[in-house]
Amino acid sequence: MNVSMVDRHNSQSQHRVVIVGGGFGGLYAAQALGRAPVEVKVIDKRNFHLFQPLLYQVATGTVSPADISSPLRLVLRKNQNTQVLLDEVVDIDPDEKKVILPDGEMPYDTLAIATGVSHHYFGNDHWKNYAPGLKTIEDALEMRRRIFAAFEAAEKESNPQRRQAWLTFVIAGGGPTGVELAGAIAEIAHGALKKDFRTIDTTAAKIILIEGLDRILPPYSPDLSARAQADLEKLGVTIRTQTLVTNVAENAVTVRHENQEEVIPTETILWAAGVKASPLGKVIHERTGAELDRAGRVIVEPDLSLANYPDIFVIGDLANFPHQGDRPLPGVAPVAMQEGQYFAKLIRKRLQGDTVAPFRYVDYGSLAVIGQNSAVVDLGFVKLTGVIAWLAWVFAHIYYLIEFDNKLTVMLQWGWNYFTRGRGARLITGEDSLGKIAQRMKSGYYDAEKPTEQVEVR
Amino acid sequence: MNVSMVDRHNSQSQHRVVIVGGGFGGLYAAQALGRAPVEVKVIDKRNFHLFQPLLYQVATGTVSPADISSPLRLVLRKNQNTQVLLDEVVDIDPDEKKVILPDGEMPYDTLAIATGVSHHYFGNDHWKNYAPGLKTIEDALEMRRRIFAAFEAAEKESNPQRRQAWLTFVIAGGGPTGVELAGAIAEIAHGALKKDFRTIDTTAAKIILIEGLDRILPPYSPDLSARAQADLEKLGVTIRTQTLVTNVAENAVTVRHENQEEVIPTETILWAAGVKASPLGKVIHERTGAELDRAGRVIVEPDLSLANYPDIFVIGDLANFPHQGDRPLPGVAPVAMQEGQYFAKLIRKRLQGDTVAPFRYVDYGSLAVIGQNSAVVDLGFVKLTGVIAWLAWVFAHIYYLIEFDNKLTVMLQWGWNYFTRGRGARLITGEDSLGKIAQRMKSGYYDAEKPTEQVEVR
Repeated sequence: MNVSMVDRHNSQSQHRVVIVGGGFGGLYAAQALGRAPVEVKVIDKRNFHLFQPLLYQVATGTVSPADISSPLRLVLRKNQNTQVLLDEVVDIDPDEKKVILPDGEMPYDTLAIATGVSHHYFGNDHWKNYAPGLKTIEDALEMRRRIFAAFEAAEKESNPQRRQAWLTFVIAGGGPTGVELAGAIAEIAHGALKKDFRTIDTTAAKIILIEGLDRILPPYSPDLSARAQADLEKLGVTIRTQTLVTNVAENAVTVRHENQEEVIPTETILWAAGVKASPLGKVIHERTGAELDRAGRVIVEPDLSLANYPDIFVIGDLANFPHQGDRPLPGVAPVAMQEGQYFAKLIRKRLQGDTVAPFRYVDYGSLAVIGQNSAVVDLGFVKLTGVIAWLAWVFAHIYYLIEFDNKLTVMLQWGWNYFTRGRGARLITGEDSLGKIAQRMKSGYYDAEKPTEQVEVR
Repeated sequence: MNVSMVDRHNSQSQHRVVIVGGGFGGLYAAQALGRAPVEVKVIDKRNFHLFQPLLYQVATGTVSPADISSPLRLVLRKNQNTQVLLDEVVDIDPDEKKVILPDGEMPYDTLAIATGVSHHYFGNDHWKNYAPGLKTIEDALEMRRRIFAAFEAAEKESNPQRRQAWLTFVIAGGGPTGVELAGAIAEIAHGALKKDFRTIDTTAAKIILIEGLDRILPPYSPDLSARAQADLEKLGVTIRTQTLVTNVAENAVTVRHENQEEVIPTETILWAAGVKASPLGKVIHERTGAELDRAGRVIVEPDLSLANYPDIFVIGDLANFPHQGDRPLPGVAPVAMQEGQYFAKLIRKRLQGDTVAPFRYVDYGSLAVIGQNSAVVDLGFVKLTGVIAWLAWVFAHIYYLIEFDNKLTVMLQWGWNYFTRGRGARLITGEDSLGKIAQRMKSGYYDAEKPTEQVEVR
């Protein structure tokens, strides 16, 4: 039996597993430990598990936050060995084997850290005021507010240039999130909102997707990227590859393509590029000496543990697993799920005195949705596009949602939206939902008497 | 033809109706004018109509904000004569016949103001930091955050007194909103959450409903009040009538009953007592000389117009209509709806040169829900209680919801919750959702070494 597994606390009879983070990695780990002879504590800052792959649907007004969230207590209620705690781990003490909370500490025998990543502005953190990312419910509601408020402001705007800026949506990053956002906004402009306005023509909205590499969805095969691009363009999205965002301001984004800089006037910039590790990555590095990659993710051993601390594991997006293929495993839900399950299996085996083989990710394929009838799916042995891919995408997601919480209403909401093309959840909420628009419209950065420089937007 | 109806603006061929506020009054007015030969502008600070009677269900985690909200544009999209504007009316100029916006103005031929009421702390506005009211989506989310965060904090709290304060919920005001909140929180504590915690027994939660008069639901008949009280007590609610709230602090509420003051330690105080008119009430008074009642509501003429301004109307909760019965009409949705429809009819008739009889409210009865199987309904000729009243309540509300926006999902959500007793929408959201709890737990107002005075809670 592994030395680190010996319980040093006589008051506790059971092996204590502390899991930090209730995302896909942490939740799958906890679920898989539900019947193991261990005492599990799941610590999360939030009281719910968030189904992040559908967050863009909250941002674009199709579903409500609760539709893609499951209370952690509800999901884990049947696991009598498990306690959920709403708290934040701010530090760890790997030698004393405890995690530090803002108002206390908690001992562990085995620790799994799965606090994920947030978005990253490549050293330009002030951009986040103008270009929200999409990692939390609050992020999604902020995007939703901006997207729908932009159409409202355009309806009231008499100056054509300013109106066009309100009707211009720039999405930075051509990965799955950027593609899904661009497709959904195009569908809003050309579908749901088309008949709702009297002054503006919402179909005149410009949706511009910016990608630094030479094609969108770079992890996919080139033909799927091409198909995704064609489908997005059919929806009215302008795609600009090999283009870098060099500046983000309140009312414009600056991009560079082949050494040419260009300013695009826009009131709505959405950030879907770049991630950085949660702050616990740095803490782990400082306390254990574990190496970090450039994004701050923790480089783990083949069994997901840390080099000198076999009782500390990092799973999910926060982990950099370099032991399979020529690149680290991608930060997607299936990797996190499998890592969580592997971790649970390893613990059970260790407690029985057994060992397990190193972690191996089984790739069942990747998929990204483009619109209400279109997606791209790469299963390795077969590639799907169009309606069939879209149906595959729908069923894969419903399968995972139902597994947790019988989210029947999401399916019905989708069905309803599909046939009505409505956007029932397009509420502009937040204490200051009108204030910001009014302020920005009044602030005079666009002065009617001093027309802004004419900028051609391709 | 009424003089005020003559269009003074040659550039406009049609009579211009400006409706301020998209609640029940404003929305029903706009809908009823959909085919009239007028140009309608609906101005609201929010982009959605809110079905306020179900707001308590958002506050208690049964449904999502979008489930009880309908985008105003979507509801009014088929009315080609109608434009919805996201804006705020800050002043009116009744002689120039225009409304003043933060960044402009808008002329009208006829004006309807329906901006409703907000809650009122009887001159103690600082109480609102500790005792949120329930008028907006943001209010409801704040209540939801506090209710569910209180259980989370209790689960982490080792001091029994502090834990009991987290598990004590005080609702000020025994009207329909207070009754509905108290019943729903009792059901949460005794049902949905019962199996989710490991340290606390959620059924030990104290839910205390405070009412100043001698019975809850004072507008109802005494026997219905008695039945509601019995049903609430069966759910585990403590009802204290003839009790006044004399102070609200961060961690306690002070009440007075028969000249005896008592401090109840509690971390969650919800405000369901007292309303005051929207700020436009005062503006109307200053600009037109119209009288206000004590709550700041505008006293209207028998046709809902203002005494010296037959082209300005006040409808819904903001209006005090004293011309029927011995009390002003209550601030409930059916009154607002009928006033909105009356206004529309009056405009149509005026344009044809006709007059209409004074407004008369037709009372189809009142109803309040107590729990998942219980309600009280007073239809005048018959009084219902228990399951039958609950079913009447459900169908009345679904009828109205479906009228606007086919909110099929609400019905399904209810059905699902009814059978599972789940609380799927119990998310604790907001940028600072953990911060507040952590801060309050750490702030030391409960000092473990200096135990708080023992206070008996009846």
